[in-house]
Amino acid sequence: MAHATVEWTANLEGKFDRPALLRLIADEMRLRSDGVFPVGGIRVRAIRLDEYVIADGAEPRDAFINIDIKMGAGRPAEFRKAFFDQMFAAVRAELGDLFDREPLALSLYVEEAEGWKHNTIHQRLSRTA
Amino acid sequence: MAHATVEWTANLEGKFDRPALLRLIADEMRLRSDGVFPVGGIRVRAIRLDEYVIADGAEPRDAFINIDIKMGAGRPAEFRKAFFDQMFAAVRAELGDLFDREPLALSLYVEEAEGWKHNTIHQRLSRTA
Amino acid sequence: MAHATVEWTANLEGKFDRPALLRLIADEMRLRSDGVFPVGGIRVRAIRLDEYVIADGAEPRDAFINIDIKMGAGRPAEFRKAFFDQMFAAVRAELGDLFDREPLALSLYVEEAEGWKHNTIHQRLSRTA
Repeated sequence: MAHATVEWTANLEGKFDRPALLRLIADEMRLRSDGVFPVGGIRVRAIRLDEYVIADGAEPRDAFINIDIKMGAGRPAEFRKAFFDQMFAAVRAELGDLFDREPLALSLYVEEAEGWKHNTIHQRLSRTA
Repeated sequence: MAHATVEWTANLEGKFDRPALLRLIADEMRLRSDGVFPVGGIRVRAIRLDEYVIADGAEPRDAFINIDIKMGAGRPAEFRKAFFDQMFAAVRAELGDLFDREPLALSLYVEEAEGWKHNTIHQRLSRTA
Repeated sequence: MAHATVEWTANLEGKFDRPALLRLIADEMRLRSDGVFPVGGIRVRAIRLDEYVIADGAEPRDAFINIDIKMGAGRPAEFRKAFFDQMFAAVRAELGDLFDREPLALSLYVEEAEGWKHNTIHQRLSRTA
């Protein structure tokens, strides 16, 4: 499984293509992980942040996008480094010159977890495959 | 203490009894943990997700419910397995045939944490007990 | 870097000064950490919780504020204890007698993480310095 949560500050509304960013993250997991992330377990969501204080709190245009990944344990360290290096570069490219237009902090964190699950999306996928 | 966060995709609005699901999780912690979770420390919340991409992004009915638990460290592994096996089974039963009606991914993750706390709910409980 | 997320239950609306609490957390990180937290990496946000079950679910006034910190790895344990003891005391003082007026659970958790980042807030700060 692979969960991604994309937090974004509300002062970025209209300044980047949010649906495209979510799709890009899901596509990276689906198409560029050599099957490490089963398609039916990919879950990417966005959380809008309306109240925040950034840095010294002095510049209303200061903004951030933070991506938290939760994935199953046991993938080799080399895979993780290569895959997320690639994903982070793709996210930066997708955001384009937003970093020049706004004071912007982008971050990406990855944690591993094992849990309980039950999933009928896999069946939907096998029907449509 | 025991925190639970229930994320749910907005396309499930009206398709399951959300207040009942939150109550069930709190009740499991309160009534079925043999006192491992002090009542005054039980905090269950729901987060609605309005923007997301699931799996291949091709099926608007794809949905997920994700439950993250944060609990104090030090509970034995056997307790954790037994308790959360039971909770997960109870959540599945509460959701009933939603898994057949929608392509749905349910997940439950547990992490341990120690921190700082100050809590006057315990006093409220002892007054009403 | 230092991320803080302040969850608060909606029944606390109007009962404490939320912008002041966010500013206080950012100020503690900026002014009282001896430079351990670079200013441009401080990101504090609030998340409003509209649906929740607390304790036995019997008292609508039961409320909570939960603060999750994510910081870079490697700060000494003594720094962490001293810094967050101080921050927690400052948060309690900021909330004042809210603990007496409402049954309220306050919690603070700290985790370490390393990830990927790209940040042009540092440049904005150096221009205005």
